[in-house]
Amino acid sequence: MNSGKNMNTGCHFSHKHILGIEHLSAEHIDHILQTAESFKEISGRLIKKVPTLRGRTIVNLFFEPSTRTRLSFEIAAKRMSADTFNISASTSSATKGETLIDTARNISAMHPDIIIIRHSCSGAPEMLTRYVRASVINAGDGTHEHPSQGLLDMMTVREHKGRLDGLKVAIIGDILHSRVAHSDITGFARMGSRVFVYGPATLIPVGLEKLGAIVCSSLEEAVRDADVVMTLRIQKERQNDPLLPSFREYAQCYGVSREVMALARGDALVMHPGPINRGVELMPDVADSSQSVILDQVTNGVAVRMALLYLVMGNT
Amino acid sequence: MNSGKNMNTGCHFSHKHILGIEHLSAEHIDHILQTAESFKEISGRLIKKVPTLRGRTIVNLFFEPSTRTRLSFEIAAKRMSADTFNISASTSSATKGETLIDTARNISAMHPDIIIIRHSCSGAPEMLTRYVRASVINAGDGTHEHPSQGLLDMMTVREHKGRLDGLKVAIIGDILHSRVAHSDITGFARMGSRVFVYGPATLIPVGLEKLGAIVCSSLEEAVRDADVVMTLRIQKERQNDPLLPSFREYAQCYGVSREVMALARGDALVMHPGPINRGVELMPDVADSSQSVILDQVTNGVAVRMALLYLVMGNT
Amino acid sequence: MNSGKNMNTGCHFSHKHILGIEHLSAEHIDHILQTAESFKEISGRLIKKVPTLRGRTIVNLFFEPSTRTRLSFEIAAKRMSADTFNISASTSSATKGETLIDTARNISAMHPDIIIIRHSCSGAPEMLTRYVRASVINAGDGTHEHPSQGLLDMMTVREHKGRLDGLKVAIIGDILHSRVAHSDITGFARMGSRVFVYGPATLIPVGLEKLGAIVCSSLEEAVRDADVVMTLRIQKERQNDPLLPSFREYAQCYGVSREVMALARGDALVMHPGPINRGVELMPDVADSSQSVILDQVTNGVAVRMALLYLVMGNT
Repeated sequence: MNSGKNMNTGCHFSHKHILGIEHLSAEHIDHILQTAESFKEISGRLIKKVPTLRGRTIVNLFFEPSTRTRLSFEIAAKRMSADTFNISASTSSATKGETLIDTARNISAMHPDIIIIRHSCSGAPEMLTRYVRASVINAGDGTHEHPSQGLLDMMTVREHKGRLDGLKVAIIGDILHSRVAHSDITGFARMGSRVFVYGPATLIPVGLEKLGAIVCSSLEEAVRDADVVMTLRIQKERQNDPLLPSFREYAQCYGVSREVMALARGDALVMHPGPINRGVELMPDVADSSQSVILDQVTNGVAVRMALLYLVMGNT
Repeated sequence: MNSGKNMNTGCHFSHKHILGIEHLSAEHIDHILQTAESFKEISGRLIKKVPTLRGRTIVNLFFEPSTRTRLSFEIAAKRMSADTFNISASTSSATKGETLIDTARNISAMHPDIIIIRHSCSGAPEMLTRYVRASVINAGDGTHEHPSQGLLDMMTVREHKGRLDGLKVAIIGDILHSRVAHSDITGFARMGSRVFVYGPATLIPVGLEKLGAIVCSSLEEAVRDADVVMTLRIQKERQNDPLLPSFREYAQCYGVSREVMALARGDALVMHPGPINRGVELMPDVADSSQSVILDQVTNGVAVRMALLYLVMGNT
Repeated sequence: MNSGKNMNTGCHFSHKHILGIEHLSAEHIDHILQTAESFKEISGRLIKKVPTLRGRTIVNLFFEPSTRTRLSFEIAAKRMSADTFNISASTSSATKGETLIDTARNISAMHPDIIIIRHSCSGAPEMLTRYVRASVINAGDGTHEHPSQGLLDMMTVREHKGRLDGLKVAIIGDILHSRVAHSDITGFARMGSRVFVYGPATLIPVGLEKLGAIVCSSLEEAVRDADVVMTLRIQKERQNDPLLPSFREYAQCYGVSREVMALARGDALVMHPGPINRGVELMPDVADSSQSVILDQVTNGVAVRMALLYLVMGNT
C-alpha cells in the first residue's frame, strides 16, 4: 500500500474531522472517493490487512444502536491494523448522569487518535471536536448528517456510472428525519448531479432547495428518467407519528415497485441505506433485482471508512 | 506450527461449512480431533498465538446470549491471529425489523471469511450458507445441533479413554430440546460408541434410534457399566413447562449423584456442557469429583474451535 | 521498552494478584508508580504499542456496568499488545444461574493470563484467586477496594507535588460505600500523607482510623491547608437512601465549591474519580479550574494499568 499513491490528485486533504458532507469541497470528495477506490482491493485479499494505522487507538462511541455502521467502521479500522474500542450508550457512563462533554474529555484523556461518534442529537460530533484532541468522525448525528453514508453512496454510483455530474438522482421518502438524505443531497449536488426528492408533504423540510435539491410534487416527476433511485428507510418507531401515513398507505404512495422503476432509465440503479423494510419503502423484487446496488453500498462502506480513517490521520 | 502436520491422516477435509455432526464422516471427525489435539498445546504457551489466520475476518453473530461459546470461539480466533467482530442480537439490526437473510447478505458484503452463528431457529446456519460467501460455523441452532460442542466432547473422551469405539456413553436429561444431545448422539454413535439415553419420557423425542441412540427405560439401565455419564442442563426458563417435573422431582429422578455414578464403571467420566445447575441435574460432589472432566471439556473447546477455523479456511 | 528499566529500585515485585492497596507495601506502591511513570510516554507516541504482552490473554470480567475503567484496562492491554476479551454481566452465564466459582473455573480452563474483575460483592476477586490459575486484578469490588484507582490517584498527586509524604489529603463524601475512598485512604496513609476525611456522619464508617484516616467534624477542618481535595461521587441510585440528605442539601453541606477551595492551600489539587455529578459533590467551576487534575487522573489510569498488567505477568 503506497500511502502517497493518491496524492497525484494534487489535493491537500486538510480535514482533521469529518463532520458532514457540507464541509467537503467537490475536490475533497473526489479525493476521498479515489482513496477509497484504491483501498477497496484490500478487502478482497486473502490477508485483509495493511499496517497503515498500527498502534493507533480508535474509539467507536455509539449513543444509538447500530450494527452495520459500527461493524463497518470496526472492520475498516482493523484492516488498517488500528486498535479499536467499542462504547455503547447502554453500558456507558451516560447512564450514570455524566454529561457528553465530560465523557468526551475523559475518553480524550486516554489519548485516542480517532473518535467515531453516533448520537441522537444533531451537532454532537461538532461539539465533541471542541473538547477532544482526537479526530472526530460523525457516524450519524440526529437528523443532521451521516457523511460516510453519503460518500459510500457517491462511490457506488460513480463505480457503476463512471461519473456523478449530470446524473439524475431521485431520493424518495422521509427527508425530514433522514440524516442520510441530507448528506446525499449535499454531496450529489456538489458533485454535479441533479437531485430530485419526493415524499409525504409533511416530511419534506422547507428550504431543501438551498442544499441543491429539487422538490417534486409527484413520484413520477422524481423518478422519470432517473439514473439513480434511492429510497429511505421508514422508521417503524415513527408509525404512530401523525406526520406519517400507515405502512400500507406508505407502500402504495411512496414504495418503490417495478412499476415505479419502469419510469426511470432502463439502467437506473436502485439504492437503499439499509436496513430495508421490505414491502414498505422498497418492494422485495426491486431490492433483489439486477439494478440493485444495495450490497455494493455495503462493500464500499468499508473502503470509504478505511479512506476516512487514513485521511484524517494524515492531518494530525 | 506446521500447518500440514495432520495431513498424514490422508484425509482431504472438504467442508467449507460446519453445520452439524450429521454431515461429518467418521474420517472427518477423526481429522478434526487430530487437528485439535495438535493445536491444544498453543494455549499452554507463554505466547498463545500463531499467525495462521492473520488478516482473516471472523464475525461472531449471536442471536442468543452466550458467554462461554462466544468467548471460546473468540479466544480460538485471536490465538490464530484472526480479527474478530462480535454482533449480538440485542444490538443488531434484527431489532430494526431486518430479515436474517438481509442481515446475512449485508455482513457478507463486508467480506468476512468466517461467520459463526448462534440462532434460536433450527436450520438458520444452513440457510445462511445460501446467502453468504463466507464459511459458516454453527454455534448452536435451536434444538438441532451444536457441532463444536459435540466435537469437544468426543475429543475429551478420546483424550481420557484413548478411543471412542466400543465405549458406553450415557446421556441423561432433556434430549428433546438439547442441540448438544443431538450432536453428541450422532457423533459418538458414528465413532463407534454405544449411546444410551434416558430422561423424562415427555422429553425423549421419537425416532431417536435413527441417530444411533438406545433409549432406556430406567436411569440404571442407562448408567450401568457406562464409560461416560453426560448430564444435560435443565433450562430454568422451562420450569413451568408442563413437560417437565419440578426441580426437586427432577433432581430425585434424573439428577446424577454419587449413588448413580456407583452404577457406572469405576473409571467412568462425568461430563456436562455447562453452565451447571448444581443440585438439579448434577450433584455438586459429582461435578467436583476426580471423575469429572467438565473443565477439560472447556479447555478442549478452544482447541476444537481453532481446528474448525483452520480447517474451513483451508477449503475456500 | 526496556522491561528491566525499573528494576533499579531494587524492589522484587512478588504479587501475582492485585486485590487491594491493603496488600501493597510502600516499597511496592513506589515500584508500581515508577513503572507506570515509565510507561506513560507510550500513550503519547504516534504508534502507541509495545510488544511486551503479545500473545497474552486478558479477560475483562465486569459484573457491574463500567465505561471508563473497562476502557482504561482494555486500552492498557492493547497498548501492551495483549489480546483482550470483554465479558459483561448482562450477557454472562450469571444470568443462567451459574455460580461465580463455576464461571471462574470455566474461564480459567480457557487459559487466560489475567482476569480483571469488577463485582458488586466485596471479596469476589479474592475468592476468584482460589479457583483460577490466572493473575487476578480487582477493578472494584463492592465497597471494599478499587486499587488501580488508588494507584492512579497517588501517581497523579506525586506527579504534581513531587512527593506523597507529608501532604495533607482531604477526602470528602460518602466514605462508607466508596471503594475508591478505602483504596485511597490506605494508599496515601501508607505513603506518608496525612488523610483527613469528612462526610455525612451516617456515611463515615467506624474504625476508619485504623486505615490511617483522621475523621473530621467539619468540612473546614478537613480542607484547611490541604494539598489535595478529593471529592467522591454521590451515587444517584442512593438518593432515596435514608442515610443520605437530598442532593440540594448535599451540595450545600458537602459540595466542593470555590469557597471551600479557598480554605485549602493555594496550589491544592482538585480530584474526583468520575463520573462527576456536576453541582452536587463538585461545583462545575472547581471541576474545570486550573487546580483540577481530574483528567490527569484518567490519563494516568492507563499508565498505572499498563504497569499492573506488566508487573503481575512478571511473576507467574
